[in-house]
Amino acid sequence: MSADVRSLTIRTPDDFHVHLRQGDLLRAVLPWTVGQFRRALVMPNTNPPVRTADDVERYRAEIRAAIHSDGLPVFEPLMSIALTDVTTPEEIRAAYDAGAIAAKLYPRGVTTNSDHGVRDPMTLRPVYAAMADVGMVLCLHGEAVDANVIMAETQFLHVLPRLAADFPVLRMVLEHASTAAAVDVVRTLPRNVAATITVHHLVLTLADVVGARCQPHHFCKPIAKTPDDRAALLHAAMDGNPKFFLGTDSAPHLRIAKESASAPAGVFSAPVALSLLVEIFEEYGAMEQLEDFVSSFGADFYDLPRNPEVITFRRASWLVPEEAGGVVPFRAGMELAWSAHRHWH
Amino acid sequence: MSADVRSLTIRTPDDFHVHLRQGDLLRAVLPWTVGQFRRALVMPNTNPPVRTADDVERYRAEIRAAIHSDGLPVFEPLMSIALTDVTTPEEIRAAYDAGAIAAKLYPRGVTTNSDHGVRDPMTLRPVYAAMADVGMVLCLHGEAVDANVIMAETQFLHVLPRLAADFPVLRMVLEHASTAAAVDVVRTLPRNVAATITVHHLVLTLADVVGARCQPHHFCKPIAKTPDDRAALLHAAMDGNPKFFLGTDSAPHLRIAKESASAPAGVFSAPVALSLLVEIFEEYGAMEQLEDFVSSFGADFYDLPRNPEVITFRRASWLVPEEAGGVVPFRAGMELAWSAHRHWH
Repeated sequence: MSADVRSLTIRTPDDFHVHLRQGDLLRAVLPWTVGQFRRALVMPNTNPPVRTADDVERYRAEIRAAIHSDGLPVFEPLMSIALTDVTTPEEIRAAYDAGAIAAKLYPRGVTTNSDHGVRDPMTLRPVYAAMADVGMVLCLHGEAVDANVIMAETQFLHVLPRLAADFPVLRMVLEHASTAAAVDVVRTLPRNVAATITVHHLVLTLADVVGARCQPHHFCKPIAKTPDDRAALLHAAMDGNPKFFLGTDSAPHLRIAKESASAPAGVFSAPVALSLLVEIFEEYGAMEQLEDFVSSFGADFYDLPRNPEVITFRRASWLVPEEAGGVVPFRAGMELAWSAHRHWH
Repeated sequence: MSADVRSLTIRTPDDFHVHLRQGDLLRAVLPWTVGQFRRALVMPNTNPPVRTADDVERYRAEIRAAIHSDGLPVFEPLMSIALTDVTTPEEIRAAYDAGAIAAKLYPRGVTTNSDHGVRDPMTLRPVYAAMADVGMVLCLHGEAVDANVIMAETQFLHVLPRLAADFPVLRMVLEHASTAAAVDVVRTLPRNVAATITVHHLVLTLADVVGARCQPHHFCKPIAKTPDDRAALLHAAMDGNPKFFLGTDSAPHLRIAKESASAPAGVFSAPVALSLLVEIFEEYGAMEQLEDFVSSFGADFYDLPRNPEVITFRRASWLVPEEAGGVVPFRAGMELAWSAHRHWH
């Protein structure tokens, strides 16, 4: 890594949590992710969800086709499947053989397209055993259903020590950690328990969602919490603990859906993810920690080789577009200080 | 009062907190308030705000003109002024002489058109003394600025015992109480401290604003809180304590503003206010308490005669319009069980 006031060059990052969608929306948002990341763990909550080996192959083929037809740089979609109440160990093994490296657990009803989620995370023991056996990672949307919005994540956390105790070999990731409580729990558990942190949870608090104004483009699950929670996330992202790494949870929804009487959850952060992270890490004097957070700790946890290529950030301001493919990006219309330039062959 | 399963007749209610706006919007929303209420305390946060005796006379004339030109039933707008950092005791006396019965304190920056609000509520002592002297009521938007959204009201509450101790003759109303903490504080203070409760805070919790979806038509200040907070408000509205009475805080904003990237705070509840209240009080077996909450306790606190006329609610379902004057009403498109019919001469 080399850093000075004008530019920063680090190993090319990976995004361990992204929603790429399908069809036209996939084609519209994919270039933003590919322009900054060498790999990304693609969430399976498409409509219908990715649940089986066949689904994995079909969805990966669609993503690859979009990359090739649009002449995008080398990019590897890391595939995942969505768990349901009736997922079997056989389906886990087949999905793994098809290339899925992770399985996502959505508690039923907590977020976009989660109607077929899992009723009780503790009922899937044979599935977890199979995942531990083949080496798949369990990705947890860690929110309790029917809880107070602000407490939804905290009320889920008791699941983590139980799973960690029962499945010491199973690697599990608390996705998009949003509270100081979550950071604390993940820190205290063994090394097979990690957490992703998004860019927007490092920036927003609840006041940016429903403060003086209601801002649906800042509305996500888990919802952004208090300044203290954000401070805990910033600390976790920057203090060199390999349990915490980047998963943007970039989740595009069309503007027409977001600016409506009933907006879905999701912040489309892909266009600004790394530019903002450089800015944030610089602000906190933690530029030296950025590479670990975005390029090393995630790959290590997933037991993937670290990327060989580099990416260079230049201090060259740019204007975030007001809209991209019908979607309003995070920080739309704002000027960001750093530009990203992937190098590839 | 007479009640049976088919109809309920009570003294005509008053709304001690309503935003009637100006111009076309005033003309569009006024019939909904006038159709159910004999009097309403009209909030002064117009643009520009109502601050002086002249403003009071001008705004009241506009409201009265709308009533007369539209052939609406007898309705008395109760006027208020907005306090600023530079309001003088002389202005208070002049506004009172012009017919203002209350003055509203908005902490600066907490809600719609509050940019000119008060920096520190404890700096207006000469104003409060003048208000106590003439018999004006102090209406408090009880939220601290720069606080966590959920804690904003709780962090304001310390102001109440201080004001109550320093101005034992000044009547003050914590507007749109939204927390169990606020209910508790108001209960424990002397009789010169009361609170209004809205309809939507008896119905919504935070999950209805930013739960599975983000619903800007449910976004208000103070934001709807937890199920426990709502239970405390329901209890306060129904247990016969004269400190708690109805103020709908009906606050219309055009659909185009609400369904946007940055929606203003406010729930347009006027069209459904009493229908919903009858339904809620019936559900809790508290029909006998409804008249006190909507028609008696507020008038008593404001030292106004109770209304002589009655209103009859019939169990006749109706469909809440999807839109009224460009505004989406609370419970738009839903079927409500009770219809209201004011009797007037």
